[in-house]
Amino acid sequence: MSVLVVGSVAYDGIEAPTGKVDRTLGGSATYISLASRYFANPVRLVGTVGYDFEESDKKLFRDKGIDLEGFKVDEDGKTFFWQGRYHENMNSRDTLDTQLNVFEHFDPVIPEVYRGSRIVCLGNIDPSLQLKVLDQVRQPKLTICDTMNFWISGAREALEETISRVDVLIINDEEAREITGESNLVKCAKMIRKKGVKYLIIKKGEHGAHLYSDQEVFAAPAYPMSQITDPTGAGDTFMGGFAGWLSFSDRINEENLRRAVVYGSVMASFCVEKFGADRLRELTRFDIDRRYDAFRKLSVIPPRI
Amino acid sequence: MSVLVVGSVAYDGIEAPTGKVDRTLGGSATYISLASRYFANPVRLVGTVGYDFEESDKKLFRDKGIDLEGFKVDEDGKTFFWQGRYHENMNSRDTLDTQLNVFEHFDPVIPEVYRGSRIVCLGNIDPSLQLKVLDQVRQPKLTICDTMNFWISGAREALEETISRVDVLIINDEEAREITGESNLVKCAKMIRKKGVKYLIIKKGEHGAHLYSDQEVFAAPAYPMSQITDPTGAGDTFMGGFAGWLSFSDRINEENLRRAVVYGSVMASFCVEKFGADRLRELTRFDIDRRYDAFRKLSVIPPRI
Repeated sequence: MSVLVVGSVAYDGIEAPTGKVDRTLGGSATYISLASRYFANPVRLVGTVGYDFEESDKKLFRDKGIDLEGFKVDEDGKTFFWQGRYHENMNSRDTLDTQLNVFEHFDPVIPEVYRGSRIVCLGNIDPSLQLKVLDQVRQPKLTICDTMNFWISGAREALEETISRVDVLIINDEEAREITGESNLVKCAKMIRKKGVKYLIIKKGEHGAHLYSDQEVFAAPAYPMSQITDPTGAGDTFMGGFAGWLSFSDRINEENLRRAVVYGSVMASFCVEKFGADRLRELTRFDIDRRYDAFRKLSVIPPRI
Repeated sequence: MSVLVVGSVAYDGIEAPTGKVDRTLGGSATYISLASRYFANPVRLVGTVGYDFEESDKKLFRDKGIDLEGFKVDEDGKTFFWQGRYHENMNSRDTLDTQLNVFEHFDPVIPEVYRGSRIVCLGNIDPSLQLKVLDQVRQPKLTICDTMNFWISGAREALEETISRVDVLIINDEEAREITGESNLVKCAKMIRKKGVKYLIIKKGEHGAHLYSDQEVFAAPAYPMSQITDPTGAGDTFMGGFAGWLSFSDRINEENLRRAVVYGSVMASFCVEKFGADRLRELTRFDIDRRYDAFRKLSVIPPRI
């Protein structure tokens, strides 16, 4: 199934206890596209960058076979730039600089040929833009949406509408608590699913992820990592793996959704091994499947005797 | 296999957002014995209580078939009393009152007939007392130990010796970080296992538990609970389910250890449904096995396709 990705394409400056990069390719659409492309074809990227966008980065997308018909270079400004510093435990970070640049006027126009895409990934952007995308696509099989605390507090109404219109919402535990004002995650999930999403995924970082649906709860473990180099983009990469694998599987059912959550976790576990999206440039399907098997082994509960 | 349980028997006063009890049967040895007795026979309890210990509570142990040869009533004082109040999110609590009473002079003397017990559970007591127990038992098949921050900071040397002499250490994530001074749990686990424990279980509350051994890591999920009535004793109950099931299985291998971690989690998930140890009085093996199956269903990762 075709995958449409709408989100930011950016340059990131990242400081972490593990090192520092001044300017590396980032943005939600970048991570989602690169991760999903390991499974899906075509992957269609809608995003906007400025005149300073490197030819080598555009070449990366092309080399990976990502469709760039919806990719716009705006010569009037520079590419979205974000700079942040992670704390010692890697669980929190400070934003040091945000320059929206051309992204400030990002208006996602979906090319005609993209509008029939079967899976739609709405990266973490203003929910009113996410709604604009939903208005343009034609009966996708699955719509998937991410968001963040900034929109939960600052664009609540549009966000509620988005949540009521998408099939899958992917958020982290903190965001789930912020949306509902409830601390118990099981109650949070119930409250959020009442808003209209069919499937809710709550990511819990080093504690794995939960998938809530009508029928059941699925608890996916996290991969035990002794070293995280850079957590940037892990959430977007999760969405990419999740959507990409569902596209590859070609059937959306409970079993495949579980597999998709694990493939999302697998891709995220790779992502954090290097700075920015570097690890997503070099993986093989063999690496990915091997780690999928490691996730399975990690969580097998033998039957009763 | 026979199970020897050494720990505290106490009365607890518990306040939580869900209610309040002034005085309910508690203590690590109580929870461990009651939970393990669903699987194991004999279960032998070594503990001490005061003149105020209720006949009805002693009757409970007897009715459950718990061996009380090592259970001492000290007529010179009252039973250990603890009072605490849980915060809104149930993840933390304040101690309001601690009266050690007869427990202050607890000196675990293991009756001759208990010394050959195959599984030894060292509840959360002074590590120098845990060592005293280890000195008295004769080549048990498995020794299991719990501890807490109080001993990590206050009785470090004895605790290190205990850790080096037991087979299984069961602690929570906070304690693992405190023992090692390291925030990454995978690194913590490596450091603690180097101290001599064969199997390390790190409990993560609502995020499940990890079992670390030579061969592998096992990630057990937590049961998704929308309501926790009272978390008191959940950790002790985990140990009871873990030890009890291993006793029942009669073979200590990787598969059975995984099952034991899940049975421990099952018993703990029941424990928190009512105040104190009340839920542990009324369960059936059918309830327990049904929840075991629910844990399995929760975490099944389908094979790749």
